[in-house]
Amino acid sequence: MGNIYAKHLAGIRELMREEGIDIYLIPHSDEHNSEYVGDSDHDITFACGFTGENTTVVITKDEAKVWADGRYFLQAEREIEGSGTDLMKMGVDGVPTVNEYLKNIATDGAVFAYNGRKVTLSLAREYEKAVKGKGVTIRPDTDLVSRLWTDRPAKSAEPVWVLEDRFSGKRAEEKIADVRAHMKEIGAEGFLLSNLTDIAWLTNLRGNDIECTPVFYSYFWLTQEVAILYIQSKELDPEVEQYLSDSHIIVKPYNEIYSTLGNTGAKTVAVDPEIVNAELIEKLGDVRLIEEPNVTERMKAVKNPVEVENTKKAHVIDAVAMCKFIYQLKTGVIDIEKEDEYSVAEILYRLREQGDGYIEPSFGTIAAYGPNAAMMHYAPTKEKKSPLHREGFLLVDSGGTYKWGTTDITRTIVLGKLTEQQKKDFTLVLKAAMRLKMAKFPAGTTAQILDVLSRGVMWDYGLDYRCGTGHGVGHILSVHEGPNAFRPKISSMSSIFPLTEGVITTDEPGLYYDGEYGIRTENELLCVADEKTEYGQFYRFENITLVPIDVDGIDVSMLTAEEKRELNTYHARVYETIAPKLTKEEASWLKEATKAV
Amino acid sequence: MGNIYAKHLAGIRELMREEGIDIYLIPHSDEHNSEYVGDSDHDITFACGFTGENTTVVITKDEAKVWADGRYFLQAEREIEGSGTDLMKMGVDGVPTVNEYLKNIATDGAVFAYNGRKVTLSLAREYEKAVKGKGVTIRPDTDLVSRLWTDRPAKSAEPVWVLEDRFSGKRAEEKIADVRAHMKEIGAEGFLLSNLTDIAWLTNLRGNDIECTPVFYSYFWLTQEVAILYIQSKELDPEVEQYLSDSHIIVKPYNEIYSTLGNTGAKTVAVDPEIVNAELIEKLGDVRLIEEPNVTERMKAVKNPVEVENTKKAHVIDAVAMCKFIYQLKTGVIDIEKEDEYSVAEILYRLREQGDGYIEPSFGTIAAYGPNAAMMHYAPTKEKKSPLHREGFLLVDSGGTYKWGTTDITRTIVLGKLTEQQKKDFTLVLKAAMRLKMAKFPAGTTAQILDVLSRGVMWDYGLDYRCGTGHGVGHILSVHEGPNAFRPKISSMSSIFPLTEGVITTDEPGLYYDGEYGIRTENELLCVADEKTEYGQFYRFENITLVPIDVDGIDVSMLTAEEKRELNTYHARVYETIAPKLTKEEASWLKEATKAV
Repeated sequence: MGNIYAKHLAGIRELMREEGIDIYLIPHSDEHNSEYVGDSDHDITFACGFTGENTTVVITKDEAKVWADGRYFLQAEREIEGSGTDLMKMGVDGVPTVNEYLKNIATDGAVFAYNGRKVTLSLAREYEKAVKGKGVTIRPDTDLVSRLWTDRPAKSAEPVWVLEDRFSGKRAEEKIADVRAHMKEIGAEGFLLSNLTDIAWLTNLRGNDIECTPVFYSYFWLTQEVAILYIQSKELDPEVEQYLSDSHIIVKPYNEIYSTLGNTGAKTVAVDPEIVNAELIEKLGDVRLIEEPNVTERMKAVKNPVEVENTKKAHVIDAVAMCKFIYQLKTGVIDIEKEDEYSVAEILYRLREQGDGYIEPSFGTIAAYGPNAAMMHYAPTKEKKSPLHREGFLLVDSGGTYKWGTTDITRTIVLGKLTEQQKKDFTLVLKAAMRLKMAKFPAGTTAQILDVLSRGVMWDYGLDYRCGTGHGVGHILSVHEGPNAFRPKISSMSSIFPLTEGVITTDEPGLYYDGEYGIRTENELLCVADEKTEYGQFYRFENITLVPIDVDGIDVSMLTAEEKRELNTYHARVYETIAPKLTKEEASWLKEATKAV
Repeated sequence: MGNIYAKHLAGIRELMREEGIDIYLIPHSDEHNSEYVGDSDHDITFACGFTGENTTVVITKDEAKVWADGRYFLQAEREIEGSGTDLMKMGVDGVPTVNEYLKNIATDGAVFAYNGRKVTLSLAREYEKAVKGKGVTIRPDTDLVSRLWTDRPAKSAEPVWVLEDRFSGKRAEEKIADVRAHMKEIGAEGFLLSNLTDIAWLTNLRGNDIECTPVFYSYFWLTQEVAILYIQSKELDPEVEQYLSDSHIIVKPYNEIYSTLGNTGAKTVAVDPEIVNAELIEKLGDVRLIEEPNVTERMKAVKNPVEVENTKKAHVIDAVAMCKFIYQLKTGVIDIEKEDEYSVAEILYRLREQGDGYIEPSFGTIAAYGPNAAMMHYAPTKEKKSPLHREGFLLVDSGGTYKWGTTDITRTIVLGKLTEQQKKDFTLVLKAAMRLKMAKFPAGTTAQILDVLSRGVMWDYGLDYRCGTGHGVGHILSVHEGPNAFRPKISSMSSIFPLTEGVITTDEPGLYYDGEYGIRTENELLCVADEKTEYGQFYRFENITLVPIDVDGIDVSMLTAEEKRELNTYHARVYETIAPKLTKEEASWLKEATKAV
């Protein structure tokens, strides 16, 4: 009995026996703690068949467990059937977390192993804490999967390209100088950076190694004397090599970092324990760690004037595609009854592709009809999709990466008849989005503090949404970035980051009813300067997303005068900016779609 | 030349020479890091004459410096004249902080000393950090002032009394059992408590050693086996001794804690480094510290049903005094033109004294007229006060401690003509207070997150107030307590405390114009349960302060329909509850003062 995964599991257990390992943990990550993990890093799929995110496998002589969160319960059960691995349903009463499970199974003298290149320093510490005091030996340098997975796909190594100064707005050398100044301030002789988006931002290079994220596999090592980029050699063409040389960045082979980190001479090294992998830290040897969030994360969150101007341009291009899409859906150019979620997502992809400087989608389009929209991470596939009908809501969350910048927008489109409750909910979501947008606040204010302006609209009705109100957006990088985020809770002191000119954050409250429908309205907000008073410099938000909100969903009687004014001003701006770039028919539809309420 | 303080300074320098001390620091604190410091702890006044709060003195062979904040610049200059000590104006450009100054003057081989009983563990660590790496020896056990201050007032030792169960709502033994359960959870064998309000809460005892705060000097040591109260013996009468014995609390002499802490046998001890003094920690010897805010702080912040009911009763009693006071001011019973800030504060004290179960003021009444109200910490004295006139605002921030509970209320009373701007500001303050009061929020929400609901009203106009929007209120304890506080910034992760049923927080936004006027409106908000939905248990606030807002200050056109409704509902409740307890004339005034806008 048992399928191919059962054989893999048996193989792992065989190696565990050979190596004297009692507990083997397989993480779902890569060396860089990337948000999206490439195919070549799907160790857990190899071990048990499960293809979901946010998962871990723990194997002992007698047991094999895979953790999955609520989104994946059904899928995981199906995928691991016959693999010999049991499903651990995260968040379900009585189901231990990975750490609790480790604590339970740790016995005196046991050997606990994992591949430390795919486990962050923070996580490694948690594992250590879980088995602490149990007389367990930890071997954090053990990659058993690679010894069995002989046809593991090669690590992606797509060509790297230079983001010219007119797009980046600041030369790599200047950015590196800023980081070096910060290192002096905190007394760090070395800075070890492994986050792929931060390296791409710092070097003004882009790649194509991770889906929808134009980054490249690499590590970066910085001191006051040297800047070293560890990168797969086939990613570099002579032009890029010249650029790096001109920028005083030394190039070394990707994996060489593991053998050279011990000899840097730096006695104090800045690292972000939430990102850097445990093996890198081990290789650093006897240095004093200065632990803080990568300073590059804060630097890249504040977009410079060139990035801001270009991003606005990207939003205009993106809005043209979105307006054409909504026009087609709302006016019968597309016969809704003949379409499904997947087919309309394809239509939207094709429209975006026509935009100037288009590179790729900034993430896989979420086109979710009816009850599917209540699942926050739903995305249709060619095989699994729902047909559309002339009623209810179609939620479309999508975005593009252009040479100008990255976009992220959600519109919930009214396809036909709505219930009173649906209209009320649609209006609440709009009110919540506008309340946050209308905020004015002094220097020093964090995004967290403002979250309640949006969420409070829901709270008044005993409602809520189980996610943040918004996240930072990368510039030709990941569509999700920190440290700015509208969130009701502070996760750590280090996440406290005051909003300032140039910071871009999404504003995307929503309402989600399991099995019924989901509504989300998302604009990107640019933080801009407002007046300066004796209480300091004030800031406000500017909507850089320019696509109409579907007025067919709005119960105008629920809007305050101020909210009506806000909506009408926004719609007037949308029309004025986008109409000239549309056909006559499209423009005339937009006129109607943006008329004052 | 030089006055009595110059002689004291010379005396200190003489002792420094004898003891081989190069830098001597004098803190302004007591052994318990109390908010208010008793006369017997005014070491700084002895050393240089300055009587203000929030201060430190540092003395070397050639220099003597005293730090004062903006509130005290003028006063300090006057008080230290001729003392030989220089004023360090905190917050002024170029003036070093105490830590920066220590860093500057620390030289190799220097000896730095202070009385560690009046310096918290956190502060001692800061001092250590400031002189670190300079080859400085620290002597944290050096009390030079006591050797010179021969007529130092004796430490207060007023009788301690038992707060009966019908007032406390929970027996000391039960509270101690809760603390012991928490100690087991965090693995603490011992718990060292030195905060006077926490000890009073935990033991259900009250005293009278600190002005306006019914606490008594003491320390508390707890393990699973023993509970020891270190207390000045003259505070205890036989009845209280019996109560303590019945509660299984051992009594030891106050100062004996310093000689017994080393022999407790506990290997892990929970302490709050922001409160516990450095010498206590030294005496603990070789134990592992478990540092966290005192768990008692969180426990006492959640008022039990008896405390809640009694506190409401205290507020009704207090409101009667406040209503009579405002009635007299507004109707000519008091001739305003013949009164001053001090005299009306006295009138209010007399009115409160008539309340059932009155113990003392919960703090010194702030009665501030005109520009004085712009100073947040202003309080009139017999010598220094302003006369009142029939125009502008009189701000009165006051409260009482009753056997039922403690109150804190601010009303800004319109004495006559107002400008348009004054009316606008008064209305903004009211709106800000009401917005926060109207909040509804789910379990897990912290007070910090809600601060913006109030403050955002000011931000919209480029205005702000330079303090929190509100603080926790003790139950027959300090009028200021944590950890709940409406504040725009998170000071530490440990201050994150979710609001829940029974938590009481003040709601007191304001506007302050230097040299012109100040406005503050303060109610206490009780957190109560609202509906329970699929998003969890929701909470809302109930106003427990029941005194009319002066409608003469309100520009009704600035209120939304919802705000009008909120105000009218509140005023109706005030009338209904308080009118029956007033004279006919007072009640008829209250009817008018609370009529719907």
